[in-house]
Amino acid sequence: MWGIIATWRMAKEGVKEGCALLKEGKAAGDVIETAIRRVEDTPYYQSVGYGGLPNEESEVELDAAYMDGDTWSVGAVAALRDYANPVSIAKRLSEEKVNIVLVGEGAEKFAHKEGFERKNMLTAQAKAKYQKRVEGLKTEAGQPYSGHDTVGMVCLDTRGKMTSATSTSGLFMKRKGRVGDSPLIGSGFYVDSQYGGASATGLGEDLMKGCISYEIVRLMREGMSPQGACERAVNQLDQELRRRRMEAGDLSVIAMNQKGEWGAATNIKEFTIVVGTEAEEPAVYQVIRQPDGHCQLEKATSEWVENDEQKEKVAAGV
Amino acid sequence: MWGIIATWRMAKEGVKEGCALLKEGKAAGDVIETAIRRVEDTPYYQSVGYGGLPNEESEVELDAAYMDGDTWSVGAVAALRDYANPVSIAKRLSEEKVNIVLVGEGAEKFAHKEGFERKNMLTAQAKAKYQKRVEGLKTEAGQPYSGHDTVGMVCLDTRGKMTSATSTSGLFMKRKGRVGDSPLIGSGFYVDSQYGGASATGLGEDLMKGCISYEIVRLMREGMSPQGACERAVNQLDQELRRRRMEAGDLSVIAMNQKGEWGAATNIKEFTIVVGTEAEEPAVYQVIRQPDGHCQLEKATSEWVENDEQKEKVAAGV
Repeated sequence: MWGIIATWRMAKEGVKEGCALLKEGKAAGDVIETAIRRVEDTPYYQSVGYGGLPNEESEVELDAAYMDGDTWSVGAVAALRDYANPVSIAKRLSEEKVNIVLVGEGAEKFAHKEGFERKNMLTAQAKAKYQKRVEGLKTEAGQPYSGHDTVGMVCLDTRGKMTSATSTSGLFMKRKGRVGDSPLIGSGFYVDSQYGGASATGLGEDLMKGCISYEIVRLMREGMSPQGACERAVNQLDQELRRRRMEAGDLSVIAMNQKGEWGAATNIKEFTIVVGTEAEEPAVYQVIRQPDGHCQLEKATSEWVENDEQKEKVAAGV
Repeated sequence: MWGIIATWRMAKEGVKEGCALLKEGKAAGDVIETAIRRVEDTPYYQSVGYGGLPNEESEVELDAAYMDGDTWSVGAVAALRDYANPVSIAKRLSEEKVNIVLVGEGAEKFAHKEGFERKNMLTAQAKAKYQKRVEGLKTEAGQPYSGHDTVGMVCLDTRGKMTSATSTSGLFMKRKGRVGDSPLIGSGFYVDSQYGGASATGLGEDLMKGCISYEIVRLMREGMSPQGACERAVNQLDQELRRRRMEAGDLSVIAMNQKGEWGAATNIKEFTIVVGTEAEEPAVYQVIRQPDGHCQLEKATSEWVENDEQKEKVAAGV
């Protein structure tokens, strides 16, 4: 069995490409990197890589991570500027024994020495959006922290190896140096080839309070299905946050186990995922939260997907 | 009941002060901050705060975190330079809803705007040590990555509130921007006032692979004693690392539950902790690993403690 699952509809092309590679027998490490890069390189995805929305100082600061489920090798970067593919730098770092998580200037120096491609990640559209927001903030109560769509993936290859990876530009108008859950092991991602992997998207500040990706993998280790584990972890954390803090931020997760079974859950009305396995063609699903806390997964029609993509392009000003 | 537990003998004065404050009924948030600051401010503790050993560019880069076990409010800084008390900046960040983890320059800007005390954290002794090491590296196979003694604490106050916090300068000669487990929630620290809290010290790169502090708290939630949870988590992670990677770095942990019971474990020969509760005077313990994987905890004699402190002063060149 092989398979790959990702957060958000924007991962569609990456997942398609990933499936083709997995079918050829390619390794889960290279496949997930390729799939995430595809999202990073798309300028009208405003929350990942090139075209990502900037922080309050108009800098695009990027976070990414990579984990190998066989060896537990991990690499992560955070608050990284001016590099085209943060996920590749994270994967490179996972080959090290120490210094596997690098942030800010130190991460940039490492990337430079290793020869990674420099790129000004601020597009004209993102810059215009930033300026509009700054103007808006001056006159009205702005809501700078909307939109936090991390791409997160879990991948299983034909040899049974699993990987997990994430990439994001984080919250629009975030404070300089702000790090969310995406590069934090156990929060934004976790994978163990023996059991399965998970990844999260939403409000990083709340996702990390429950180490949600670690918890999902742990529940799968205890025998739960990926769907059951996702729903349990989301609902548990959502309840704890409401009880302790009166509110809970957006929590959305995906998971796949070592058999290629998969699941997804959310505490918001709806989020989207993309999944493809040996048994099923790559497809976009809408994950719709039910009143009882369970999530219904519906395959999106091609019209819906096209319409959703079109809306994203318009929003990005493309 | 009240109590406070900390990693390493160097926390002795901080824990003593913490106990006095807890006895007076002071809150676990302020107490843990005071206790950690005491360690940060001591120049001859070479791995925390002032006097901490620098990275490969001769900069002291500091990591710290704070978590409130009632509200799950969290704050953390990483790769922060030139501020006297990173733990206080982390605690301040925990009051925010978003932007709670800040790294590098962004963290420094925040600290500056908030009026925190600037300080060049590189002491003459640390600088001399760096230069000696650089010379040494040129002529012989150096071992730059020895010594990684994070101060981590868990605190319980008379109202039942629990907190956890960490502070470290990380690995000597680390890469610029390197972040270990200390500022990562679930890895370096975790606390839930309903059950208990935990903190870790050792090789951050390996501790994070098991989300060890989250796991210890989870085991206490399932009913395990702090000692049982610490031993189980250390031994499990140690075994997984050896199986997957042929080796495991240093893993040492402490925990306290909501009844003020406490425990500690390690996969190295010996590490030290300091603990004081309503029931027992502050004391240093040697945590000694047994051949069967259990750890024996022995109260250190005052001669041993004095001798250990003297050795530390000599090592620091004081």
